[in-house]
Amino acid sequence: MTNSNKIKVGIFGGSGYGGSELLRILLFHPAFEVAFVSAGEHAGKPVASVHKNLNKLTDLAFISSEKALELTNQVNAIFLALPHGQAIEIVPQLSENIVVIDLSGDFRLDDESIFLRYYKREHPGNIQKKFVYGITELNREEISNARLISNPGCFATATLLALGPLYKEGLVVGSAIIDAKTGSSGSGAKAAQNTHHPQRSNSFYAYKPFEHQHLPEIKQTLDKLGAKPADLIFTTHSMPVSRGIFASCYVELSDKLSQKDLQNVFQSFYEDSFFVRLVETSPDINWVKNTNFCDIAVNTDGKFAAVFSAIDNLVKGAAGQAVQNLNLIMGRPETEGLIFTGSNP
Amino acid sequence: MTNSNKIKVGIFGGSGYGGSELLRILLFHPAFEVAFVSAGEHAGKPVASVHKNLNKLTDLAFISSEKALELTNQVNAIFLALPHGQAIEIVPQLSENIVVIDLSGDFRLDDESIFLRYYKREHPGNIQKKFVYGITELNREEISNARLISNPGCFATATLLALGPLYKEGLVVGSAIIDAKTGSSGSGAKAAQNTHHPQRSNSFYAYKPFEHQHLPEIKQTLDKLGAKPADLIFTTHSMPVSRGIFASCYVELSDKLSQKDLQNVFQSFYEDSFFVRLVETSPDINWVKNTNFCDIAVNTDGKFAAVFSAIDNLVKGAAGQAVQNLNLIMGRPETEGLIFTGSNP
Amino acid sequence: MTNSNKIKVGIFGGSGYGGSELLRILLFHPAFEVAFVSAGEHAGKPVASVHKNLNKLTDLAFISSEKALELTNQVNAIFLALPHGQAIEIVPQLSENIVVIDLSGDFRLDDESIFLRYYKREHPGNIQKKFVYGITELNREEISNARLISNPGCFATATLLALGPLYKEGLVVGSAIIDAKTGSSGSGAKAAQNTHHPQRSNSFYAYKPFEHQHLPEIKQTLDKLGAKPADLIFTTHSMPVSRGIFASCYVELSDKLSQKDLQNVFQSFYEDSFFVRLVETSPDINWVKNTNFCDIAVNTDGKFAAVFSAIDNLVKGAAGQAVQNLNLIMGRPETEGLIFTGSNP
Amino acid sequence: MTNSNKIKVGIFGGSGYGGSELLRILLFHPAFEVAFVSAGEHAGKPVASVHKNLNKLTDLAFISSEKALELTNQVNAIFLALPHGQAIEIVPQLSENIVVIDLSGDFRLDDESIFLRYYKREHPGNIQKKFVYGITELNREEISNARLISNPGCFATATLLALGPLYKEGLVVGSAIIDAKTGSSGSGAKAAQNTHHPQRSNSFYAYKPFEHQHLPEIKQTLDKLGAKPADLIFTTHSMPVSRGIFASCYVELSDKLSQKDLQNVFQSFYEDSFFVRLVETSPDINWVKNTNFCDIAVNTDGKFAAVFSAIDNLVKGAAGQAVQNLNLIMGRPETEGLIFTGSNP
Repeated sequence: MTNSNKIKVGIFGGSGYGGSELLRILLFHPAFEVAFVSAGEHAGKPVASVHKNLNKLTDLAFISSEKALELTNQVNAIFLALPHGQAIEIVPQLSENIVVIDLSGDFRLDDESIFLRYYKREHPGNIQKKFVYGITELNREEISNARLISNPGCFATATLLALGPLYKEGLVVGSAIIDAKTGSSGSGAKAAQNTHHPQRSNSFYAYKPFEHQHLPEIKQTLDKLGAKPADLIFTTHSMPVSRGIFASCYVELSDKLSQKDLQNVFQSFYEDSFFVRLVETSPDINWVKNTNFCDIAVNTDGKFAAVFSAIDNLVKGAAGQAVQNLNLIMGRPETEGLIFTGSNP
Repeated sequence: MTNSNKIKVGIFGGSGYGGSELLRILLFHPAFEVAFVSAGEHAGKPVASVHKNLNKLTDLAFISSEKALELTNQVNAIFLALPHGQAIEIVPQLSENIVVIDLSGDFRLDDESIFLRYYKREHPGNIQKKFVYGITELNREEISNARLISNPGCFATATLLALGPLYKEGLVVGSAIIDAKTGSSGSGAKAAQNTHHPQRSNSFYAYKPFEHQHLPEIKQTLDKLGAKPADLIFTTHSMPVSRGIFASCYVELSDKLSQKDLQNVFQSFYEDSFFVRLVETSPDINWVKNTNFCDIAVNTDGKFAAVFSAIDNLVKGAAGQAVQNLNLIMGRPETEGLIFTGSNP
Repeated sequence: MTNSNKIKVGIFGGSGYGGSELLRILLFHPAFEVAFVSAGEHAGKPVASVHKNLNKLTDLAFISSEKALELTNQVNAIFLALPHGQAIEIVPQLSENIVVIDLSGDFRLDDESIFLRYYKREHPGNIQKKFVYGITELNREEISNARLISNPGCFATATLLALGPLYKEGLVVGSAIIDAKTGSSGSGAKAAQNTHHPQRSNSFYAYKPFEHQHLPEIKQTLDKLGAKPADLIFTTHSMPVSRGIFASCYVELSDKLSQKDLQNVFQSFYEDSFFVRLVETSPDINWVKNTNFCDIAVNTDGKFAAVFSAIDNLVKGAAGQAVQNLNLIMGRPETEGLIFTGSNP
Repeated sequence: MTNSNKIKVGIFGGSGYGGSELLRILLFHPAFEVAFVSAGEHAGKPVASVHKNLNKLTDLAFISSEKALELTNQVNAIFLALPHGQAIEIVPQLSENIVVIDLSGDFRLDDESIFLRYYKREHPGNIQKKFVYGITELNREEISNARLISNPGCFATATLLALGPLYKEGLVVGSAIIDAKTGSSGSGAKAAQNTHHPQRSNSFYAYKPFEHQHLPEIKQTLDKLGAKPADLIFTTHSMPVSRGIFASCYVELSDKLSQKDLQNVFQSFYEDSFFVRLVETSPDINWVKNTNFCDIAVNTDGKFAAVFSAIDNLVKGAAGQAVQNLNLIMGRPETEGLIFTGSNP
């Protein structure tokens, strides 16, 4: 594909880790071309002076948000990789022809009152209802036909891919317990006390028990998927690694299923999903880092199921899934530009 | 206390991490004196040539197990810090006057058939029934009057201290979900593929879902503590840190308890337990490393409780608790020789 | 390029980290096709069962060395990624038409007596003299015309790219001091005490001062490059990371050079070398991990130069440079199949 | 020693890592008692709410600097653990009877013009000349008789203990090359971009080549120790660990010394220095972490010496050495309250 035939895309918020990963992926995508990337505080600077991994790999420079807004009429799609609350301001200013993929939490929740509770913010005009939730493997068809995508949270992605098959098949009794863990890059590219290396490098702790803001998008999605409302206990933890989400999900099964039965449920469900890999006993964040894969293992003692999933929070949990969704919308192969091998070790 | 007045102790298995921690603690204990320490493969070598942190701090040399057995009649107490299965061979050879604290799993389970199932080993002569289970804060009185102590597993210690108050007070409905995580030192001092640094340093994975060998000792202890049998779903995970256990425990509460009520339950329960510290929201393995503390936080949404506990697997989870138990047996203050400040960071 | 037009390559020793990286690169190389990969202890097993990052990305299975030897007549080139000493046995059995790229130390040293001293091994028949030393940026032309390549050691690569321009220009007075550091994957894929995670994860130490086996290949190369013999003090250290080599090189300069002069020397030297990136003050192993880049910074106080270089030990320090060399030999673009973006963070 | 007999000490700047370590040590020191600890932004808060490792171990609360200044007449000694530049303001306000141990760089350099160059700050009144440089093992007698101590920098401590014996004995020819590495806690307790965990956890890089501010205090000390001025090339690097300094020092030897000769030089020099441990080949930061030890190894090829030293930057490199110096001044045993075993692993 020559450059002139490529689909033009723009990125808002290119200086964070989400933006960095979008660039890493899109700069080498065979069908897409990055027309612009904005980053307020870095406007004018070469992208590679901020993301030094891209040194010699791109001549792009950051532009301001204002400039980026002007250029949106020259692109087919934009990615919004901005702090929570900023996409709400930008989306109403965009043309109705442009594809929008938002990586923030701004448009993930249908219900305004729940949005207010978790994000402490009002939703003017209910535009969130026009957005399709971009959990690719669970919502492929709707995404393919959408123009506005709300990309899932990283914890939500790992959890939904682990629990989706069980709720879809109506196999869950009672409350699901989700014990989720994230690496430090989930806190973003700006230094903060909870990511101060001396403290974080040997630590492990829980935070936001019962009340993490990814909980309602998980519940909303499982509610739509299954026949009855999902009852979820959700807790997040901090791991002392840079990248990775690991979700341990425990549910009581409604039917007595053998280990083999349970594996079959997942195998059928993910038969056509290249980026979901079913593995034995447990996945490892080490094997999915820098990739768009979600590795999943299912285990049962006959009564309970323990489902473990692992993703790279910045790829399948953010930029990778965002590009996967754009592939679908643009009629490209779902995996195009997204097959990264990871590394060993 | 002059050296001649000190209580003499011997250590079997001084080359592993358990033995190393016992030495670190006992060499500076005001009331105890290490008379000998055995390590088959290192017999004759200075202790400090193996445990280089002890360089200049001890002149002790390792002796053989055979030699150690001969010397047991010169000591008041011995610690067995041997691989599973070896204490079973040694205990029957010991005098009936000597205090024995075994750090392995050999004598933790009352029921032979369960021992056989989890440890793949027969129990000759049922001597395990003479051992008292050394989870200090839950079993202080029995330990004080015992001669034979079976020291708890590291996962069991963290879990039991988190769940003990709830089971004791009969507050649990249905199954408890325990999602436990350990650092790499839990695998011992010998190199193995699962502790190979290139692989382990960026990894997180689950292992032994439903079937870890610490599960039955947890159940056995909670069964004794509460009015009805405990129903437990227990899974262990590997964290990429050297030291630390973090247990996340989720239970449905039988009564509607406020956050304050729940904290009161724990505060009363641990009122006289110096080494349990109740903290807000979540403990952090970073704040307990190298100490004998167990930090615990309790949280509730009104229906479920999430209890988090953190210990150093080698101290409160092994050598520290072992010495704490010997303090009780010997009529010493429970905290003697065990107040380590940890470090920041 | 269709599969049938691709250049066929074989890999001996596919289960180690060198082999793993060769696979990661070659499976996606547009001009090369992996015809076979051997791994004695894993013969018959799917490659992806050992290198789990390749799950779903290849259907290849390992074969035995014997089988691989039989198949060499069906390939155009082979990579030998075997423990030191094994390539010496294999090379004499190969056809004279096949391109051989050896990643071990077996053929790096011209002088048999030096080889004997550092590798404790005799060189039968002097075949090492037929091998061309594959430090691409310093030896491009000779490599392009070679059939037998001895790929440099990881420490040697980082050091030679840092010091090459200074020795080539005759700018060095007296001894060069090289303080090199490596990540744990440099020790290979097999678990060992020095890579035991609990010990290694918080450690930093020096090893083999004055006598590391990469020293003679560095000296041999610099001797050829400059007008007079190089005098080198070389020491290696272990860092607690999985991947990366960082070399700090200190030399007294023969001429008074400004910071700008010195940078110009390097800029001219590496003008046509895509994989060398000159950076300010210091490179960081973080920005080159998983890539074929070597980042270099030069600094001077007017009298001494401090040159810092950083590579990924398994890519530019092994598999990446090996493929770079095959690209040259096969007349392919030097960078083909080797442009990896690294990641941030 | 009863509390009333204890020597009273105060700490200015108790919220940073230096202050945290002073507390960890002094709260358990048999002869000293912490009368107060200041921390501007935390005044009124319990110490244990900031340094959570001290939870249950102290009831102290932070006070303001103003309040602390008022209380100085009630203590025998104060420690200043403040950011650079603040001690200069405080010292002139203190009584002439009080012992002062300053952990900052404010009083380390005799020469005002050098101070200005490295710290960008004027020295009013030349009071720095009244301070004795507190590198204990090289300056024990002067320290014992001093009232004002300027505690060495962490890099300076590691380097001076490595090079002191060689300069004292006049064994060095030409320039010494010092390649020093530090853990992230050396950057202090406040979060910053260079200690952001996602970036720092897999990084290694050099900084301030030729111009680190610890260089002049090293040179000043070696100049006094030897017969001729020291010529030093000094570079610092960042390691991805929380604690530890590792210094690799390379010098050409004036005499031909065997490995044994060289070791004897160091053995004689440190015969009476408990906290210096001479080890084989190389120390490891892992074996000195949380301790006041400096482990040193010396190696030679007959012409050059490679001396490696390792310390905990916050203990021997800061708070531990500060207390060691106060021990000397107060006529206490040098090691009192400072024998920490470190840990394994």
